[in-house]
Amino acid sequence: MLAHKKAVCLLSGGLDSATCLALAVRDGYDCYALSFDYGQRHRVELAAAARVAESLRAKEHRTATIDLRVFGGSALTADIAVPKHESAGQIGEGIPPTYVPARNTIFLSYALAWAEVLECSDIFIGVNAIDYSGYPDCRPEFIRAFENIANLATKAGVEGKTHVRIHTPLIELSKAGIVKLAAELKLDFALTHSCYDPNNDGRACGHCDSCLLRLKGFDEAGIIDPISYAK
Amino acid sequence: MLAHKKAVCLLSGGLDSATCLALAVRDGYDCYALSFDYGQRHRVELAAAARVAESLRAKEHRTATIDLRVFGGSALTADIAVPKHESAGQIGEGIPPTYVPARNTIFLSYALAWAEVLECSDIFIGVNAIDYSGYPDCRPEFIRAFENIANLATKAGVEGKTHVRIHTPLIELSKAGIVKLAAELKLDFALTHSCYDPNNDGRACGHCDSCLLRLKGFDEAGIIDPISYAK
Repeated sequence: MLAHKKAVCLLSGGLDSATCLALAVRDGYDCYALSFDYGQRHRVELAAAARVAESLRAKEHRTATIDLRVFGGSALTADIAVPKHESAGQIGEGIPPTYVPARNTIFLSYALAWAEVLECSDIFIGVNAIDYSGYPDCRPEFIRAFENIANLATKAGVEGKTHVRIHTPLIELSKAGIVKLAAELKLDFALTHSCYDPNNDGRACGHCDSCLLRLKGFDEAGIIDPISYAK
Repeated sequence: MLAHKKAVCLLSGGLDSATCLALAVRDGYDCYALSFDYGQRHRVELAAAARVAESLRAKEHRTATIDLRVFGGSALTADIAVPKHESAGQIGEGIPPTYVPARNTIFLSYALAWAEVLECSDIFIGVNAIDYSGYPDCRPEFIRAFENIANLATKAGVEGKTHVRIHTPLIELSKAGIVKLAAELKLDFALTHSCYDPNNDGRACGHCDSCLLRLKGFDEAGIIDPISYAK
């Protein structure tokens, strides 16, 4: 239990980042939640992030507006279709078109900037390398390499004052494991949003990789997902 | 001579990044110049970047609008005074208040995103570890660590298709050395802007660290700086 230490927590508004924030809060961190308005198709997740941050009593919640559309290249930020399937078993191999180039590198760089201003050395990110979409920047070796950068890039690192740590408490959990953990932490699942391609009314599509992985996780955990799906 | 290879070149509009772009062009790269509108006090540098990119015939020049004011913490983005001195010898030791937390990490992350979309593996950044302001994210060990990240964070890196290289051709040059190199490359110095705190008419202040290092470099190189100073 680390009481009254500050932590910057990346918060998309999805199940994983909300669970990660809930864990950091449980462990006694004063949490500074950080979200990004990056021109994502599922911008509705930002409202979810705000609800989650409030519900978990984050010390502060900021949303940085950053331009990731300037390069395109992803189904989440450009006019490229989001793949849809009937079940999680049909999710394709390899890196899918929803991958946003260098997104986690950019997000972690911002988290690092805020951490530096806050004089805090703990950053939480809810990446997961088991039931995930095959994004290269969710892998443990990427996270360790970023931790290395964090300690070379910053004032505190240079002055030897602190050691930045990137916490990835979900990295080795299955989606079902994350759902169970979130339930233990009493996370209000209804506040979260995972879908990459929600309907106009904000409801989850039920067929994108993110929906299918979420549904599979709830199913395997034996817990009912309270959000409403358009399917 | 590497002909017709693409390169992403970070371009602030200052002397160093302009020289770096001129070198990449000289070496036969098709250059994609990238600038950032990050709420900097010296936003006038963006016009300089556009002039330089055009003059050096970059293939493309894009400016990403990103929010670095969301965290504050720097004299370049918040209401903190830019230090002024009479000569370069008076520049303070340590990391100055003009340091923008994690700025080069963020800039390189964006360059990496664009490189990934362009399917290009060469990134140029005009950092300099000799006559510089003492920023931690200008050091060679930082750049090598970012190169490591770049190869772990990307689709191409994971698929083993390419090896991303961060080129830092100015890193071991003195400011005078950069001025001489730029003169050899026939860079039009009048197009560049270095000052952190320009007058309302856009003229350089002549007393911030950036102006003083620039003036010292021209002086030592025995070349006249054609830009006009307010001093």
